[in-house]
Amino acid sequence: MTTPELGLPMAVPAQGLPAAVRIYEVGARDGLQNEKGTVPTEVKAEFIHRLADAGLTTIEATSFVHPKWVPQLADAEQLFPRVSELPVALPVLVPNERGLDRALALGARQVAVFASATESFAKANLNRTLDESLAMFEPVVNRAKTEGRHVRGYISMSFGDPWEGAVPIPQVVRVCRALLDMGCDELSLGDTIGVATAGHVRALLSALNEAGVPTHTLGVHFHDTYGQALANTLAALQHGITTVDASAGGLGGCPYAKSATGNLATEDLVWMLRGLGIDTGVDLDRLITTSVWMAEQLGRPSPSRTVRALSHKE
Amino acid sequence: MTTPELGLPMAVPAQGLPAAVRIYEVGARDGLQNEKGTVPTEVKAEFIHRLADAGLTTIEATSFVHPKWVPQLADAEQLFPRVSELPVALPVLVPNERGLDRALALGARQVAVFASATESFAKANLNRTLDESLAMFEPVVNRAKTEGRHVRGYISMSFGDPWEGAVPIPQVVRVCRALLDMGCDELSLGDTIGVATAGHVRALLSALNEAGVPTHTLGVHFHDTYGQALANTLAALQHGITTVDASAGGLGGCPYAKSATGNLATEDLVWMLRGLGIDTGVDLDRLITTSVWMAEQLGRPSPSRTVRALSHKE
Repeated sequence: MTTPELGLPMAVPAQGLPAAVRIYEVGARDGLQNEKGTVPTEVKAEFIHRLADAGLTTIEATSFVHPKWVPQLADAEQLFPRVSELPVALPVLVPNERGLDRALALGARQVAVFASATESFAKANLNRTLDESLAMFEPVVNRAKTEGRHVRGYISMSFGDPWEGAVPIPQVVRVCRALLDMGCDELSLGDTIGVATAGHVRALLSALNEAGVPTHTLGVHFHDTYGQALANTLAALQHGITTVDASAGGLGGCPYAKSATGNLATEDLVWMLRGLGIDTGVDLDRLITTSVWMAEQLGRPSPSRTVRALSHKE
Repeated sequence: MTTPELGLPMAVPAQGLPAAVRIYEVGARDGLQNEKGTVPTEVKAEFIHRLADAGLTTIEATSFVHPKWVPQLADAEQLFPRVSELPVALPVLVPNERGLDRALALGARQVAVFASATESFAKANLNRTLDESLAMFEPVVNRAKTEGRHVRGYISMSFGDPWEGAVPIPQVVRVCRALLDMGCDELSLGDTIGVATAGHVRALLSALNEAGVPTHTLGVHFHDTYGQALANTLAALQHGITTVDASAGGLGGCPYAKSATGNLATEDLVWMLRGLGIDTGVDLDRLITTSVWMAEQLGRPSPSRTVRALSHKE
């Protein structure tokens, strides 16, 4: 399907970039959660199996959120046991203590909490102040750590917010510090509305380092709403970031709507990293086959440019 | 339309980038040349006027190619006088001496020749060897320079070629040197099939510098076939490049087909540069209005993510 015999993309390493990148695959959770039509549990399970077969080593599997909030992921109890034996990391989202209980009962070894950098989002999403929302996560993180689980903290709206606009860097740093201080092992800086640009990325990462947050604890989660996701990723790699969130086939939000979440497509990321000679362990052909299959399940084409370019029937 | 009151994108300059970038707008020529339905001359003229009103200072207007080859641009003689009084640079493509005659007769002050880095493309496009194709351009460039015209040399297939795959950097350097030696004032490195990645870009630019080609004579022309155009542009800016080719609304080739030329959308570029605090002189709202209008003329939506995000009706 791809054309390695043509030597494309030509692998030309660039100075100052990491030798390997861990792709944190979010398609099965973040990518599917806003799908209108219910995706059958067996399709989700096959999707995750295929992603693992394609070489992805970290695959966020589902969310133990209340089914009322995210009906698409109401099958978490049914899904997780169908994938939990895969030899990959399978983090799951836990919104609160009840969600953590459910995840722990199924033996989840990695969990993630979903915080935000802004008052407006905390208010809109949780009807809490920012500090109240952080206080809500504290017992979740504490308990997960006591139980020996690995904990990721998402910080949504890390660059911009639809109500507040540009988010001051010190505010993001404060939330990151709070999540690390309560015990999170890693953080994911989310550009939920896609308004980050490369200089902003570097500035936030530098400010975090200055506040004592080591680069190796940080991942980046860019959205392609304004076409910036891959350029922002390059800027993050130049800063030393080695964990990049991406969604197979660009799943997650319709790219034609303003409300697009527009997740960075894993294939476009793998193409860039392959060109940079950076190891990901991903088999691009298998991944594209998976995304084409998933697009068929959902009944619409993948927005990933790499998937479109390489899956086109001659 | 955009939301400057929200301060987005937050302008955060990054180290080592230029203070200003000249956008070389190719929508009216490269963007339209492969359109199937004939675009009326008055629409093309209005498009160019609107682009100038939006602040673009270099707008490639048309091509004086034989009408048999590019029927869409057969109206070059009718179009050019309708835009030639605009206070912007209006380069035109001239494929050969006959095309140059036509351009000079209309008073064109800037012309461009379209060379290639590979034997396969020279063979397919001109039925000549690479050296024969360069020999064909020599009298065109010579005469344009004798007449006091500014000459741009395009080098298509500067990174990859659909027949040969990855193109060796020394071969691209040789073609660039030949074009400069025959008198070209500037060059545009074209990633015609979109397979460049950031390290490859830096490596080619460095090799050109080592061969005595100064960075200020170079522009970059990236395609988004694999989603890499903006990341590659960032890499080029980091090398000191200050001329970037882009196409308003991403005009040029269907993004859904493998054969997509998939020009970098000017709006996505302006969004990134605005975020980096780099001056372009472009009014993004006016440009988006123009691309939305042009998309209506062509009867299909713009593939630019920034146009989609900001032109969405609430």
